[in-house]
Amino acid sequence: MGDLNVSKRAQSVPASPIRKLIPYSDEAENRGIHVYHLNIGQPDLATPTIYFDRIRSFKGVDAYTNSAGLMELREKFSEYYKRWGIPFEKEDVIITEGGSEAALFAIAAVADPGDEIIVVEPFYANYRAFATFLNVKLVPVTSRAENGYAMPPISDFEKVLTSKTRAILFPNPGNPTGTVYTSETLNEIVDFAFNHNLYIISDEVYREITFDGLKAHSIMDFGKQENLIVIDSLSKRFNVCGARIGALATKNRSVLKSVLKMAMMRLSPNRLSQYGALGLFELNDSYYRTMVNEYQKRRDVVYDELSKVPGIVLSKPQGAFYFAARIPVDDSEKFVKWMLTDFSVDGKTTMVAPLSGFYVTPKLGKDEIRIAYVLKEKELREACQILKMGIGAYKSERKKAKV
Amino acid sequence: MGDLNVSKRAQSVPASPIRKLIPYSDEAENRGIHVYHLNIGQPDLATPTIYFDRIRSFKGVDAYTNSAGLMELREKFSEYYKRWGIPFEKEDVIITEGGSEAALFAIAAVADPGDEIIVVEPFYANYRAFATFLNVKLVPVTSRAENGYAMPPISDFEKVLTSKTRAILFPNPGNPTGTVYTSETLNEIVDFAFNHNLYIISDEVYREITFDGLKAHSIMDFGKQENLIVIDSLSKRFNVCGARIGALATKNRSVLKSVLKMAMMRLSPNRLSQYGALGLFELNDSYYRTMVNEYQKRRDVVYDELSKVPGIVLSKPQGAFYFAARIPVDDSEKFVKWMLTDFSVDGKTTMVAPLSGFYVTPKLGKDEIRIAYVLKEKELREACQILKMGIGAYKSERKKAKV
Repeated sequence: MGDLNVSKRAQSVPASPIRKLIPYSDEAENRGIHVYHLNIGQPDLATPTIYFDRIRSFKGVDAYTNSAGLMELREKFSEYYKRWGIPFEKEDVIITEGGSEAALFAIAAVADPGDEIIVVEPFYANYRAFATFLNVKLVPVTSRAENGYAMPPISDFEKVLTSKTRAILFPNPGNPTGTVYTSETLNEIVDFAFNHNLYIISDEVYREITFDGLKAHSIMDFGKQENLIVIDSLSKRFNVCGARIGALATKNRSVLKSVLKMAMMRLSPNRLSQYGALGLFELNDSYYRTMVNEYQKRRDVVYDELSKVPGIVLSKPQGAFYFAARIPVDDSEKFVKWMLTDFSVDGKTTMVAPLSGFYVTPKLGKDEIRIAYVLKEKELREACQILKMGIGAYKSERKKAKV
Repeated sequence: MGDLNVSKRAQSVPASPIRKLIPYSDEAENRGIHVYHLNIGQPDLATPTIYFDRIRSFKGVDAYTNSAGLMELREKFSEYYKRWGIPFEKEDVIITEGGSEAALFAIAAVADPGDEIIVVEPFYANYRAFATFLNVKLVPVTSRAENGYAMPPISDFEKVLTSKTRAILFPNPGNPTGTVYTSETLNEIVDFAFNHNLYIISDEVYREITFDGLKAHSIMDFGKQENLIVIDSLSKRFNVCGARIGALATKNRSVLKSVLKMAMMRLSPNRLSQYGALGLFELNDSYYRTMVNEYQKRRDVVYDELSKVPGIVLSKPQGAFYFAARIPVDDSEKFVKWMLTDFSVDGKTTMVAPLSGFYVTPKLGKDEIRIAYVLKEKELREACQILKMGIGAYKSERKKAKV
């Protein structure tokens, strides 16, 4: 029995590296500083009105839905996937409480405590929280700023493979990197997974946000469907982060059956959000085009401004709405805090996310940051200029401190 | 590496004993049979209009909220608790995606894989799914139909206590039993937990649904607050099951901090539902009184009808909206299926929940059922009469089969 401690699991679950610095920005804002928030993936774009219209027209009792979600919504997902050439039937799709729950259920479905999942770092930070929550070990292969965070070679995966490896997990397009993997790369990974009886958990929540005419391939484009699990979410593509509507889709019957049992345990996804989501699937191509054009313009602004920073390592990402970059500071978490506590330009400062929480390997990411371009062009340009000035000022201040 | 199996965890998570029989009722309904659904805790009462009004008046982006929920909503919970004499401040409350997530987080916060949690069986069936999902072992102490499913004596808890015991978990008022524990009982349990450094996870989602003027005590009424975690939900008291708004509340700082990290990993509860919930807290006493009176009337109808069944063991429950009862059948799951496949009266039949899934101990519950009184008086009476006839017909058919 011993003491009234919390579990080791609870102690080990990491706080969100993105959310844990919020108290510093709150404090800056309380001092009257205007903080440009490039730290969090919450887009500023409007939520489509059709979403609210559908919710407003709901009549009846706000009752549970089927644990797997409304069949009409599963059908909409299926139609949507087929437009992308992805052969998911409605029965292959389970509606989840955001992409978060889809990731949690996918990890739980394939891995027991002590099992290993290979992740391509830097990766979406909450993967680590889900794995820790489930006592699953994340084993990293590392992508590098110097080559645009491209997928590491298969030999790197072979090196970390053990008898406990159960799956490979990565986002594509990438968060925090914005990297879109090539079809050659994905094909190799799928073959590797197939040859070693591994699952691939492919996080495709940024599927349509790609630039310069590039298309993001779904992992489902590469055969071996029994091995593949897709995580999805409406949050980013429709600016409905608060709706908590995502999906897990797979052709693997055993995984589907397992995930359905997990869905039953929490009874039902949100009913009204599901009705709203039905409307979102009716938006046409022009909606997506407008959104993607807007993000592409913003990406170009950020690249334009930040590529001027002396010592920065930065590639132009092809998707999502993030930049990851190596910057000439000793500790990016300290730097992010310092920007909030000690630096401002005309009463304004910029907040970004330090990248160490996006790595499993200790010490990696300490000189990297993530920039979410979730502000309109004019503010974004100013935010980047402030960031650039901040990096310069921080460097000279540290130099002075060392003298 | 081996085969492409799902995890042992996934194989072990039980399907919901309530939801898994739905295909049989679907089939009955397809054959034109009217099925009275007394199997699921989905009330038929209206969702208060203020909930929808608040959601309809929402303006802005459907963005993430704070991971712990809107501060205004945490404050409403705190005010509500204080009206019940429960001293939770807003900082003590974390908004969760239904009571389900609160239970999952509470178990994860106190127990590691292999750790044990004592449950009072029969209990809310999904506890077993949460524990299995987290590789935590549920250890039962058993309450009995013959004495109204009263709390077992402390000596039963002592018998199952091991060095791995971390917590005691039970609902009060009880689901599936409707039992409301006395203050003497709760006081003893709290003392026992305190003396052995155990947490109590008290599931109080039916708090206000009690009958004959009885008040359900919160576990927080009994001191030792460091040891206590309350699970809560708006689903049942406001008929917003589809809103997925619950709460976890505790005075234990380490548990709160742990649960906040878990809340961060899934980013945010549903935004619009939280706005709707703000409205629900403005409903006055007459709302609660009307609801409770309605359930009390229904309870009396069920008791009136079912106490006439020869061989039934049935006590009048003091809370929630369930009866648990021992009935004279060999296997209640088979009986429930049979009612759907082989029995009807004037084209109607009644579906209840078999109780074996509400027990950990093998074979227990095989002659027990749960009846949720979630229909209006007239239908409820007819549903009970059909159930009564069904029990009689099933018995004579089984007798014939044996001859």
